[in-house]
Amino acid sequence: MTSANDKLKETTVSTEHIFAGKVISLQVDTVQLPDGTQGKREIVKHPGAVAVLAVHNGRLLLVDQYRQAMGRCELEIPAGKLEQGEDPLEAARRELEEETGYRCSQLTLLHSFYTSPGFADELIHLYWADDLTEGEASPDEDEFLEIIQATFEETQQYIAEGRISDAKTILAAYIWQQRRSVHHGNQGI
Amino acid sequence: MTSANDKLKETTVSTEHIFAGKVISLQVDTVQLPDGTQGKREIVKHPGAVAVLAVHNGRLLLVDQYRQAMGRCELEIPAGKLEQGEDPLEAARRELEEETGYRCSQLTLLHSFYTSPGFADELIHLYWADDLTEGEASPDEDEFLEIIQATFEETQQYIAEGRISDAKTILAAYIWQQRRSVHHGNQGI
Repeated sequence: MTSANDKLKETTVSTEHIFAGKVISLQVDTVQLPDGTQGKREIVKHPGAVAVLAVHNGRLLLVDQYRQAMGRCELEIPAGKLEQGEDPLEAARRELEEETGYRCSQLTLLHSFYTSPGFADELIHLYWADDLTEGEASPDEDEFLEIIQATFEETQQYIAEGRISDAKTILAAYIWQQRRSVHHGNQGI
Repeated sequence: MTSANDKLKETTVSTEHIFAGKVISLQVDTVQLPDGTQGKREIVKHPGAVAVLAVHNGRLLLVDQYRQAMGRCELEIPAGKLEQGEDPLEAARRELEEETGYRCSQLTLLHSFYTSPGFADELIHLYWADDLTEGEASPDEDEFLEIIQATFEETQQYIAEGRISDAKTILAAYIWQQRRSVHHGNQGI
């Protein structure tokens, strides 16, 4: 997984802990740069998250929720933070069911990716959900959300309009598009 | 751009400023939730960034650099923060040239996306670069990086190996793949 490129490596000299919150914590690392000088790196620590690309009867499951960081509502694929020690696959199953009510018989890891490697260690595990069955949603007490089921064309329109505007959901839409073109004629996806 | 879904809206009651750094700042907002109760939102403020999907002679321009948040080197498409008041398109042109030395005659906006809407307001503007010409790189003084030019197959391999593991670069690879399939036979992309 690691690059052998040692001449780019930075070494941590010290860490100043600035903040420890409910979701994230913040630290400033002093690092030794490859040329021997020192620099500062502001780093947000995050527990990691899961997201689920779930298509049921040709419609993508989306969650509409208010995002304080953006100051507006946004449509995203179901997602949520990892709980301490939680297996990502189990977390994906839990988040899908809590947020949308849907259960799935199988989850397949598509990608694990860092969202903001310049300043945060958040790693999202993105899964493909197979064989969905409908149920009752049970969001967390401070989560207020609505479920939207969008056709492929509606999903493209939401991206064009900016109602879908986060990296994981736009990435999911491209993956869905690729899978549709591979499984051409399969209206289920 | 905004959802009309007012029943999901949260209203800011107060903001506590925790930290103001060189790259990011951190605040904790107290919000009124849709049910009238209050909650806390930990929000990282970021100036926004640009990234460039640049393919030259069938090879993707990638930058190898150490990421302190990840504790290792990673290959990413050229990217960087917006400077104060800077136009994203000009920033994309600047970052491409600073990091890789390449100039381009035209940049086309592909998507603007939030990287971590749950806790950060970072918005990345992702551009497609046309008609690249080679030049001399001039990275910032605290940036140590190497340029890699990867074929499509090498790019897929880097993703599989985890040497490419950030959202914007994986998204760029899917967009490249889609453009290749549309322009089938055009070896330039």
